[in-house]
Amino acid sequence: MSGARLKDVAERAGVSIKTVSNVVRGAARVAGPTRERVLRAIDELGYRPHASARHLRTGRSGVIALAVPELVAPYFAELATCVIAAAKESGQTVLIEVTDGDPAEELRIACGLSDPLIDGVLLSPLGLDQTALAGRERRVPLVLLGERDYEVPADHVLIDNVAAARDATRHLVGLGRRRIGVIGWQHDEPPHATAQQRMQGHREALAEAGLAYDPVLAPAVGAYTRADGAAAMRELRALPQPPDAVFCFTDMLASGAMRVAHDEGLAIPEDLAVVGFDDIQEARYMVPSLTSVAPDKQELARLAVKALLARIEGPAEAPPTTVLAGYDLALRESTGLSPSRP
Amino acid sequence: MSGARLKDVAERAGVSIKTVSNVVRGAARVAGPTRERVLRAIDELGYRPHASARHLRTGRSGVIALAVPELVAPYFAELATCVIAAAKESGQTVLIEVTDGDPAEELRIACGLSDPLIDGVLLSPLGLDQTALAGRERRVPLVLLGERDYEVPADHVLIDNVAAARDATRHLVGLGRRRIGVIGWQHDEPPHATAQQRMQGHREALAEAGLAYDPVLAPAVGAYTRADGAAAMRELRALPQPPDAVFCFTDMLASGAMRVAHDEGLAIPEDLAVVGFDDIQEARYMVPSLTSVAPDKQELARLAVKALLARIEGPAEAPPTTVLAGYDLALRESTGLSPSRP
Repeated sequence: MSGARLKDVAERAGVSIKTVSNVVRGAARVAGPTRERVLRAIDELGYRPHASARHLRTGRSGVIALAVPELVAPYFAELATCVIAAAKESGQTVLIEVTDGDPAEELRIACGLSDPLIDGVLLSPLGLDQTALAGRERRVPLVLLGERDYEVPADHVLIDNVAAARDATRHLVGLGRRRIGVIGWQHDEPPHATAQQRMQGHREALAEAGLAYDPVLAPAVGAYTRADGAAAMRELRALPQPPDAVFCFTDMLASGAMRVAHDEGLAIPEDLAVVGFDDIQEARYMVPSLTSVAPDKQELARLAVKALLARIEGPAEAPPTTVLAGYDLALRESTGLSPSRP
Repeated sequence: MSGARLKDVAERAGVSIKTVSNVVRGAARVAGPTRERVLRAIDELGYRPHASARHLRTGRSGVIALAVPELVAPYFAELATCVIAAAKESGQTVLIEVTDGDPAEELRIACGLSDPLIDGVLLSPLGLDQTALAGRERRVPLVLLGERDYEVPADHVLIDNVAAARDATRHLVGLGRRRIGVIGWQHDEPPHATAQQRMQGHREALAEAGLAYDPVLAPAVGAYTRADGAAAMRELRALPQPPDAVFCFTDMLASGAMRVAHDEGLAIPEDLAVVGFDDIQEARYMVPSLTSVAPDKQELARLAVKALLARIEGPAEAPPTTVLAGYDLALRESTGLSPSRP
């Protein structure tokens, strides 16, 4: 291992030790040419910072972890991108971990075991049992990011899923639809909180409109994938009385459902109006473009990073908070908005 | 900081120290209930492994970094997912970093500065100047993953982009198309290697068929986004003689281009045949579904992880290798395959 030290790098690059330190940490405030000079000096000398020394000296690594269930769902890729941007504004870098929704992996990350250098964890939980998290002693600052309703002593940033789902179904009711299907219900025991909350909002909107809830219009899905959305739509189409509208709990489910509707020759929205959830970039480009509940991902990310930094810097004993980010309903062709260029 | 040690955790959980160590590293071979018991003991005792101690003892952290330009492009999200799966098979965990294609950030990661604990780096470079990388002394094992043609002393895993692009344009020629546009050319100096290679393959296929290359059919794009694809298609449609087919250098570009073609009332593939590149999941669900060059992402990931592990475990001085993964052309509706359920 090379014996080069920070001082040697600074001398070779003709800059201060502080500047080298800033470059190593990836701080944005070092000008491009200087940054490049320092990096070349680091490279030439084969310098590597000693992790624990750096960590122990400042007590902070400037690195936070973001754990998400998956990246193939564009929602999480877009959310991660917003978190990286928000963290960068505060001079933090982000390492991303993918949990596959595995409860043990989520707990391992929540305990700060995945990388001992990180200052804190943003966790978008999926499989994690809340009793497991409740026992956690918060050795590592933790903020939960996402839709589940956790009764645990950790900060939580999310949107009001019940209200957002109610708005989605209200919109379909407002179009005169009376037989409104749902794609996204899950038969797990207990059902996933996201599905539960969105179903609650859906049912509240039906009740307001005097419409009965019919469980055959809510086929269960295994996961929130395009293939699951396609399979659920085939089930709905096979009913004696298929729906005239469908509220999908994610845009991925809606993508699969709309593809099947297209294959069966249905006109959207005339024969079937469709609303999705997440407002992924793709929703604006689909044919037809997809009306979707749009969580304010930038605000979610900003609030989550802010809460985590407050927890890292502030007293560990402050009571946990729940913070709501905003959302919107983005209206598009799948519920009758006339085509417009994306 | 807590004084709990590995031994204390093992005693509390009633398992061996080796088992605790396996759980901490995230090794998959510990059974679920045992894993949970260990994690609870870790949590109750507030144990945190001492990073450098662990690292120095084994000389390995079992963690590799994957750096990609962005995650919003589904290609990189899908590739990252394949890398995580391939690494898991070898007992490695993956931390993902997003570079935004920033040359200094890519160089910082290639030098192993982003996280001193990692054993090695898989880098999908975008902005990095190859002269910067060439000076690198390989203190951290590095494998390049992706389409650029780097003349640097590092292992490189990629597909044959020239051949793949040639196949794409040959397919359009085979359909009888004679005025074949290209979306994805970039006017940077020097042009991005990916664009250069795909353009070379395209032009070779035109030449084979006795077709002249017409630069007005290759409008430049700023980036490989849906919006850029849409803008390029508008340019092509405004030509006195618009194309009867278009080869898009990514599926994202094709998504934007097809949306504009739809808005202008074109029938795909009758009026305009479209081929994309990357074979992202969405390609199978678009209306119409998109014919696309399909790099074998699983093989790319497997080969890249294998090359990196060989570099981590093997002699640092072995000469760098270039390994090619396979690809395929996935035929779908956008070039005339009849509709079928995804």
